[in-house]
Amino acid sequence: MKQKKLKLILNQIFQKYNLSKDHSKIISNYLIKAELLGAPSHGLARLKMYCDRIKKKLIKARPKIKIRKISNSISHVDADNSIGFIAADIGIKQAIKNAKKTGIGLVAIKRSGHYGLSSFYAEQAVKNNLLVFCFTNAPAALAPYGAKKSLFGTNPICFGVPTGKAPFIFDASTSMINRGKIRRASKLGMKIPYGVALDKFGNITTDANKALKGTQLPIATFKGSGLAWMVDILSGVITGSSHSGKIKDPFDDFSGPQNMGHLFITINPKIFIGKNFLKEMKINISRIKKLPKAKGFTSILYPGERKNKTYRKNLNKDISIPSKILKELNELNAC
Amino acid sequence: MKQKKLKLILNQIFQKYNLSKDHSKIISNYLIKAELLGAPSHGLARLKMYCDRIKKKLIKARPKIKIRKISNSISHVDADNSIGFIAADIGIKQAIKNAKKTGIGLVAIKRSGHYGLSSFYAEQAVKNNLLVFCFTNAPAALAPYGAKKSLFGTNPICFGVPTGKAPFIFDASTSMINRGKIRRASKLGMKIPYGVALDKFGNITTDANKALKGTQLPIATFKGSGLAWMVDILSGVITGSSHSGKIKDPFDDFSGPQNMGHLFITINPKIFIGKNFLKEMKINISRIKKLPKAKGFTSILYPGERKNKTYRKNLNKDISIPSKILKELNELNAC
Repeated sequence: MKQKKLKLILNQIFQKYNLSKDHSKIISNYLIKAELLGAPSHGLARLKMYCDRIKKKLIKARPKIKIRKISNSISHVDADNSIGFIAADIGIKQAIKNAKKTGIGLVAIKRSGHYGLSSFYAEQAVKNNLLVFCFTNAPAALAPYGAKKSLFGTNPICFGVPTGKAPFIFDASTSMINRGKIRRASKLGMKIPYGVALDKFGNITTDANKALKGTQLPIATFKGSGLAWMVDILSGVITGSSHSGKIKDPFDDFSGPQNMGHLFITINPKIFIGKNFLKEMKINISRIKKLPKAKGFTSILYPGERKNKTYRKNLNKDISIPSKILKELNELNAC
Repeated sequence: MKQKKLKLILNQIFQKYNLSKDHSKIISNYLIKAELLGAPSHGLARLKMYCDRIKKKLIKARPKIKIRKISNSISHVDADNSIGFIAADIGIKQAIKNAKKTGIGLVAIKRSGHYGLSSFYAEQAVKNNLLVFCFTNAPAALAPYGAKKSLFGTNPICFGVPTGKAPFIFDASTSMINRGKIRRASKLGMKIPYGVALDKFGNITTDANKALKGTQLPIATFKGSGLAWMVDILSGVITGSSHSGKIKDPFDDFSGPQNMGHLFITINPKIFIGKNFLKEMKINISRIKKLPKAKGFTSILYPGERKNKTYRKNLNKDISIPSKILKELNELNAC
């Protein structure tokens, strides 16, 4: 589908669901961005879910988002159960402002929901010449090390830094693969890789539906589990949001708002060494790129580089939409 | 050996090497702490290395460490090639002071060296009721994803947070096992586990000496590599220290000081939700501990809990020292 047409349809749908013109535009752009980045699990595949939750008033169509200033560096955002995209968009802009003023920004967001990709927000900070961490928790998907039941979300760690070229953005879940990929595989009847998830009996499975009822495996056993726990504390506990398995699954649990939390830390990377920062950053990347390549590799990419290339390659292309998702889109637009 | 006797010997040794009484005491306590925590790879096994470097003036016995105040939150420490323990000890105390004053502290340390365990410093922040990140880079040990040559250090990620009981301290290298364990295995003629390192030809090896000449494997392929890269940028690039494989190996490379960097971020975890923080943190841990246990587990421990138990169990016990290391200790003391 032509991007222009898709954008129009998405804006129409969100406005039908009573979102403001501004908010509809922001969300539509993020959903399309996920598709262009090659991350369809965080794009149109979630549209119906967002609409269902707005309809059931679990996501507020017209939230009253409040920003409480704690200091010139620190702010606390109450998202009032807005769709995650909007709360996070406001949050990262505040975190950027704070770091520009003081060298370091810290913004916590409570009562939010799924916000797409952490890299959406990290990229904005990097484009403002800042180093950034984005943390968010998520519905139960991973068993803590030593447990046989899911509790942590796939809790991604996202870190961004300017390079003078495409942003360095590391954005990885603490699970072997992200849950969106399993959901999409389930939706499209595809298999998942071996060794990334267990069924409800604790056996390894490649069946996406069985995996969704079982539990996902964290990276590096206790290390991945510890990192997921860290993210739960940072984005859930200290922000005043739900945590320790209480984030509601947006697809399955309509008993209340998600109550997710996010935490953004922004730092001026020139604060210690001034303009030498970018010089050293370029040296860093160039030394690594020059290393002898492992078998099967012709180049070494830094985190975010491949996604950036994909995005630029797709920037003016039509977006291909699987028939199942296209049907949803048309139904939502026809309502 | 009795702890009292060991402490006396270590203090004597460092003072012979012209370190001040105060600095000798701080370092001796950290080395003994590593042994008591059950991390001998970061304890006495490194004593001779530190002394060799002091003798060759690669570690300054009497450094002039300078703290530059950038704001009430942010400080930059020039360690003047001190032994890492002393620079990091000064750095974390400054980071604690900054966060107590403003809610958030950021301290970069340049021109430093190996500082033992990150948890030494994280623990101090946690005992001051702060949440903390400690980052440090390290000599080349890991191949970046796509490369066949070591460049990143084992670059640990360390995160601490108060719990009301033993500190929650996640402190894990981004490699499958830490390099100190391989060094110690090499020193004591022990094998290393299968699947954690390659020899110089790119084959998996369990021979510690071959592994030291080859490269270690990062956790979760590109994810571990990305995390190690993040740590290199945070502790090396932005602090004004060496980075991208230029940190000198303290055991093998006597061509100059190590020029390592560290970065500490300290946050008041009550800044957003006040005294509810500790209440929620306790709920978080208790929910996770109550989960049904996986096969082979009778309890679920949070990061740092086991080390804390080990430490308390060993607190009044003698320290057992392998004969090879005891010989070094006696030789250094006899000089």
